[in-house]
Amino acid sequence: MTIAIVGGTGPEGSGLALRWAQAGETIIIGSRDAQRALETASKISEKVGTDKKLSGTENRFACSDAEIVVLTVPFAAHAETLKHIKPSLRAGQILVDTTVPLAASVGGKPTRTLGVWQGSAAQQAAEFVPDGVTVVAAFHHLAADLLQQQGPIDCDVIVCSDDKNAGKRVRELARKIPGVRALDGGRLENARIVEQITAVLIGLNIRHKGQSGLRITGLPDEAFKN
Amino acid sequence: MTIAIVGGTGPEGSGLALRWAQAGETIIIGSRDAQRALETASKISEKVGTDKKLSGTENRFACSDAEIVVLTVPFAAHAETLKHIKPSLRAGQILVDTTVPLAASVGGKPTRTLGVWQGSAAQQAAEFVPDGVTVVAAFHHLAADLLQQQGPIDCDVIVCSDDKNAGKRVRELARKIPGVRALDGGRLENARIVEQITAVLIGLNIRHKGQSGLRITGLPDEAFKN
Repeated sequence: MTIAIVGGTGPEGSGLALRWAQAGETIIIGSRDAQRALETASKISEKVGTDKKLSGTENRFACSDAEIVVLTVPFAAHAETLKHIKPSLRAGQILVDTTVPLAASVGGKPTRTLGVWQGSAAQQAAEFVPDGVTVVAAFHHLAADLLQQQGPIDCDVIVCSDDKNAGKRVRELARKIPGVRALDGGRLENARIVEQITAVLIGLNIRHKGQSGLRITGLPDEAFKN
Repeated sequence: MTIAIVGGTGPEGSGLALRWAQAGETIIIGSRDAQRALETASKISEKVGTDKKLSGTENRFACSDAEIVVLTVPFAAHAETLKHIKPSLRAGQILVDTTVPLAASVGGKPTRTLGVWQGSAAQQAAEFVPDGVTVVAAFHHLAADLLQQQGPIDCDVIVCSDDKNAGKRVRELARKIPGVRALDGGRLENARIVEQITAVLIGLNIRHKGQSGLRITGLPDEAFKN
């Protein structure tokens, strides 16, 4: 499986790339600047200890070779990036949207969110992608700093999608990150709540100097297995 | 400390009443129907094993004798109940709002929420209460069925308030429920996200037949102590 990380030079994108490269996935780091993408790919290769499965290129090129495209850009660049990569997207691909519409995108607080016309960043993404590309919302609550470090991450990933099969594939991808459990969060429309939880976690981080995440309790083990 | 539970005959309100009565607090069960309030108070007394600290009465009367008023009515009854109890509220009291504006209130799905003009149910409550009454949003994520049972509850309570002292008192109240940790969720405006998380938990409960709650990870121990 080849995974393109659009905005892969940022802290969240490069953190996910590191974890998935460590798990043996083939990763293409995408960036607006191909040179920076290559540099990030090279840095991650050093950490992982092999350069066979990591490459870096411009965002649009990164998308054309991938089965799964993971979007990890700030919300301010969300629509613009989607328009830019759209010609490289094709039916059958999964676009994983990790974006949170923080008010910080427009100079506001990172503990507040913007109202997105479509309901959520992920639903905005769904409006941009070509027919046949499935949008899945996930990975909103994993602290970038923790992804960059070694060791398991004490956080669950809630995955929202209108396509059950695509959701399942992304949950399997989430479980490749040590410590992470993945849950079916239902339809893509639920991303409008799941995305916003990040703003609460950011507030807790500011108040308590932490790198907060969340665990869901009270569900049977099977909920974390399919 | 005397705690009035408005809507205290419902599953959430009577569950909180049970837990706080067990912890030694003085509880007044409030209901639109005084007779039902008395019956619920009597049932809880049986479980707790003493009737000294539990009473039941009409909602408005319940509020007048309490230092803390806990509102546990469905969102459909939220504004109406606040208007009704307003004459009994007085400066210095804390109103704890546990309400979640689920779309089910108007015949929609329990996994969806309504847009509330003020931003959240708690902010709507803040508009209704007399000057000097402090609104605190909390207890949205504790499953009523778990409150009704014995045993610790595997869930954190996120407390939002514009009054630091009132928030602290409510966090102390939350910690009287075995298993519960309480966190400062910041200002009351953050209730607009915290309330909505319940709709995600309800979706998980439906999909996975559970009684979900949440735990916040990645914060220092002190975050749960003040």
